[in-house]
Amino acid sequence: MKNDCIFCAIGAGEIPCFKVYEDELVLSYLDINPFSEGHTLVIPKVHSEGLLDTDDATLAAVLARVKKIAAHLKTALPCDGFNILQNNGEAAGQTVKHLHFHIVPRYGSEPIVFENKKGDMDKLKALAERVRL
Amino acid sequence: MKNDCIFCAIGAGEIPCFKVYEDELVLSYLDINPFSEGHTLVIPKVHSEGLLDTDDATLAAVLARVKKIAAHLKTALPCDGFNILQNNGEAAGQTVKHLHFHIVPRYGSEPIVFENKKGDMDKLKALAERVRL
Repeated sequence: MKNDCIFCAIGAGEIPCFKVYEDELVLSYLDINPFSEGHTLVIPKVHSEGLLDTDDATLAAVLARVKKIAAHLKTALPCDGFNILQNNGEAAGQTVKHLHFHIVPRYGSEPIVFENKKGDMDKLKALAERVRL
Repeated sequence: MKNDCIFCAIGAGEIPCFKVYEDELVLSYLDINPFSEGHTLVIPKVHSEGLLDTDDATLAAVLARVKKIAAHLKTALPCDGFNILQNNGEAAGQTVKHLHFHIVPRYGSEPIVFENKKGDMDKLKALAERVRL
């Protein structure tokens, strides 16, 4: 666990989140400023900054969870499709320097935008309870 | 190999591409309508449609190649950061129904957009030769 890393603190349960899934390796929770309804993050509990400093075995295990959670969300939300996005570096819009994969649900012909919208905490809480895996 | 799948045909060498990397499992090549300079795709040679119908071992192997190629591009281009994007379903903007990961290089404070720009074939050819791994 890295000091001053907010995602490490969330992963360790020190900061609350709208949890979707958790196991020994990863934590998954709703983005509080979602790109779309059901926008979910998946993080490894062990700290790394991004793709390049994460070992292949950890990446493999995290991606298997991303797949499992995305499959669940597709039917639980439900949504019509989804983007997987993972940003590396400030130039790529990475705001938290802890590896995270975005699962961004998409609906019908709604525009495919990657812009944060301020979330409603009560609605996020209810959504997390509804889609928890 | 799936009939009528353009990425299967590219993977089999039946349709040319601006190759960046190839091994027994994956092919990687420049997107001809790039989001940014050096926008690269990574595909498994065996057909699957997206994240959900690809087995975890294949996903693990492909992501390890994505990491390797992205690390190379970061210094070979060079770029300041990069996005990894993988789209599932038409609602998510998936235009070719063959699993592919986008590596989208980012530069300084340039806007982070995910919009195709028509590529210049001569420049793409030269770029592929320069960054080939």
